[in-house]
Amino acid sequence: MDVTEFRKRGKEMVDYVADYLEKIEKRQVYPDVEPGYLRPLIPDSAPEEPERFEDILKDVENIIMPGVTHWHSPYFFAYFPTANSFPALLADMLSGGIGCIGFSWASSPACTELETVMLDWLGKMINLPPPFLAGKDGEGGGVIQSTASEATLVALLAARTKAIDRVQSENAKLTQGDIIGQLVAYTSDQFCATLGTTTCCSFDKLLELGPICNEENIWMHIDAAYAGSSFICPEFRYLLNGVEFADSFNFNPHKWLLVNFDCSTMWVKKRADLTCAFKIDPVYLKHDHQESGLITDYRHWQIPLGRRFRSLKMWFVFRMYGVKGLQEYIRKHVRLAHEFKDLVLQDDRFEICADVILGLVCFRLKGTNDLNEALLKSINDARKIHLVPCHLKGKFVLRFAICARTVEFAHVQFAWKHITKLANELLKAQKQQK
Amino acid sequence: MDVTEFRKRGKEMVDYVADYLEKIEKRQVYPDVEPGYLRPLIPDSAPEEPERFEDILKDVENIIMPGVTHWHSPYFFAYFPTANSFPALLADMLSGGIGCIGFSWASSPACTELETVMLDWLGKMINLPPPFLAGKDGEGGGVIQSTASEATLVALLAARTKAIDRVQSENAKLTQGDIIGQLVAYTSDQFCATLGTTTCCSFDKLLELGPICNEENIWMHIDAAYAGSSFICPEFRYLLNGVEFADSFNFNPHKWLLVNFDCSTMWVKKRADLTCAFKIDPVYLKHDHQESGLITDYRHWQIPLGRRFRSLKMWFVFRMYGVKGLQEYIRKHVRLAHEFKDLVLQDDRFEICADVILGLVCFRLKGTNDLNEALLKSINDARKIHLVPCHLKGKFVLRFAICARTVEFAHVQFAWKHITKLANELLKAQKQQK
Repeated sequence: MDVTEFRKRGKEMVDYVADYLEKIEKRQVYPDVEPGYLRPLIPDSAPEEPERFEDILKDVENIIMPGVTHWHSPYFFAYFPTANSFPALLADMLSGGIGCIGFSWASSPACTELETVMLDWLGKMINLPPPFLAGKDGEGGGVIQSTASEATLVALLAARTKAIDRVQSENAKLTQGDIIGQLVAYTSDQFCATLGTTTCCSFDKLLELGPICNEENIWMHIDAAYAGSSFICPEFRYLLNGVEFADSFNFNPHKWLLVNFDCSTMWVKKRADLTCAFKIDPVYLKHDHQESGLITDYRHWQIPLGRRFRSLKMWFVFRMYGVKGLQEYIRKHVRLAHEFKDLVLQDDRFEICADVILGLVCFRLKGTNDLNEALLKSINDARKIHLVPCHLKGKFVLRFAICARTVEFAHVQFAWKHITKLANELLKAQKQQK
Repeated sequence: MDVTEFRKRGKEMVDYVADYLEKIEKRQVYPDVEPGYLRPLIPDSAPEEPERFEDILKDVENIIMPGVTHWHSPYFFAYFPTANSFPALLADMLSGGIGCIGFSWASSPACTELETVMLDWLGKMINLPPPFLAGKDGEGGGVIQSTASEATLVALLAARTKAIDRVQSENAKLTQGDIIGQLVAYTSDQFCATLGTTTCCSFDKLLELGPICNEENIWMHIDAAYAGSSFICPEFRYLLNGVEFADSFNFNPHKWLLVNFDCSTMWVKKRADLTCAFKIDPVYLKHDHQESGLITDYRHWQIPLGRRFRSLKMWFVFRMYGVKGLQEYIRKHVRLAHEFKDLVLQDDRFEICADVILGLVCFRLKGTNDLNEALLKSINDARKIHLVPCHLKGKFVLRFAICARTVEFAHVQFAWKHITKLANELLKAQKQQK
């Protein structure tokens, strides 16, 4: 494929993606396929000779699409949202075209510098305390990790290095091996300090945890993977109070801030805590400016060496939506969740199982877990909407998460009508059995 | 931005990327900017109101491009290649549009199943022993990791879990804490068993290391990040002999197989080794088919929970190039490296410092390290080509890596002429000083 054909096929692909997203409502949100469906549909091995693009695109529609769970369907209410916006898609096209690998400042200065500034922009949007910002000469700053799991692991490894160094500075005779078996990490059953748990979007009390961590010299990492995006709205910023006690903080714009996966933003108060834990400096990665102290080599902030130019996505999204546009987007989702909650509360047979603070509603039929498992099964078997469950204090609970960029109250109403219809059928069948 | 504008802007972006790659030769391969160049060029914080796409695209050209190291310029000979091909760009556009998160089979069956089959395709292309393939009911199989570092970490953690389990099964009284301080990992100064080191593309002797690892019950992980792609050519496959002794094997199609970053492919003989180390099963991730044994939940194979639909890139690239097209591509790069080596050997003042096996040539001026450091500095200061150095047995050495998809012999010739011109100037200046 030469550049002339790329111009043609690229434009066809833009239209294919535009069509897909424009008409996604017409696709069944959750696929019918059984495990192993795909293997018999494609050859056993790669072709020797090149194939035609038209044939591949046909196979996308005939082989891939029937096995896709459509996360951007307005009937998708499962898990948590994953972002998908047009500005982010455009930025990712550009990022792919540039195709640089930004492991050091010199390997592509723009890739590193835009990231540092975008993390400052986003930090200011959620009103992070200044020590977390890089500015021109701050000790802290932000970095894009791939996922919240990686951010947590990075924090954990940095905390471990710091604790070992501290103990060794107090007692030089101790080896790393002596110390490492003695280290303790405190977590809840959702792991670290969490703002917006996946189960029910609950919030740990940072103002209670934080001072204890600081007094006891415990590294405090806060994970706000889903909820973090909401903090750009002043009315939700109170949920972040206490972040000033933390050593590191992370959330995922790729969940709820319209920046396509992957973009998990992490800030630390002391960048030296990361770079001391991860520093690798072979000669082929050294460059002239390395010792200046003015620059950032992000490979010292993360597990991988390589990294894509992901801050372009943030830049495009922030500029094309504006902060006001992003705030409106968050508020719309929260409003829809409350509207769904109100619908549930109007039906005496149902109960709400957790405070509705952001875009997640946990609900269930009053009754046994079996009943609710049956309800969820009938919902997902019907394939008209898609939900996943959780366990809350021994109860089987249904999660209704506002997910798609294009979801409107009409979709929420449809979902509730559909759920109550299935509940009616289920309760009727149960009565008949008795 | 609505879908109508996306159709328009998307096509403009296709043309922008096509123009960028078509005319990349005219851009200076390594930028002039100084650390901190970008921050003063853009606002301190995100805009409140939306901005226009035209203005953003102008800023890409005026603010971003002057700070980009152009990895796909045919004058870029630094590090190792990073892949960039039109089929992969098209597939990434599609992957972004679908925007599914494939942490479990159910979260998007096509995302998981295409990956498993693509890893089988690629495994067959490099003639991996059958235990590494998934097939319909194999115990092994492959997974896409983000980077080779992550694959190595995953292997290390799986090996640790396996070793702890084995010791505990022999002595139930021992705790994890007792055992963990006693564990040993054997590495060289390039870490694990490596095929194609970054420094000089040297190869560990798998046929010597492998049997020892197997006899001593040591997990053997092989990293062939760069070199792995060449194994699709029968004439280079001998370099992989001994892989049959390994527990896990990894290489990066995102380096040299025209699949854009990130796509680091990892295979294991026993998938249970990974899933036992990483299994996480909260109820919101359970699904009907989970217990069938027929399916793969890739979240148990990796550090992150979330994952993009990256196998589309492999599928598009393998089909649009065909195995023959990919082999031709590898062979062209190897040929160019040998042609560069021949040029170097024709000049008595230079020496070749390591066997040229694939696409990397390590060379230097006969003489002091200072002289070679000065030569590299003058090369990179001139900004006409871009190289990075390495240290080999105490010697400062220049690395000439064949990188860009579009590099031809004319570029290699130009580079060599340019290098000798700068060497002439340097040696002349030295003589005058004496």
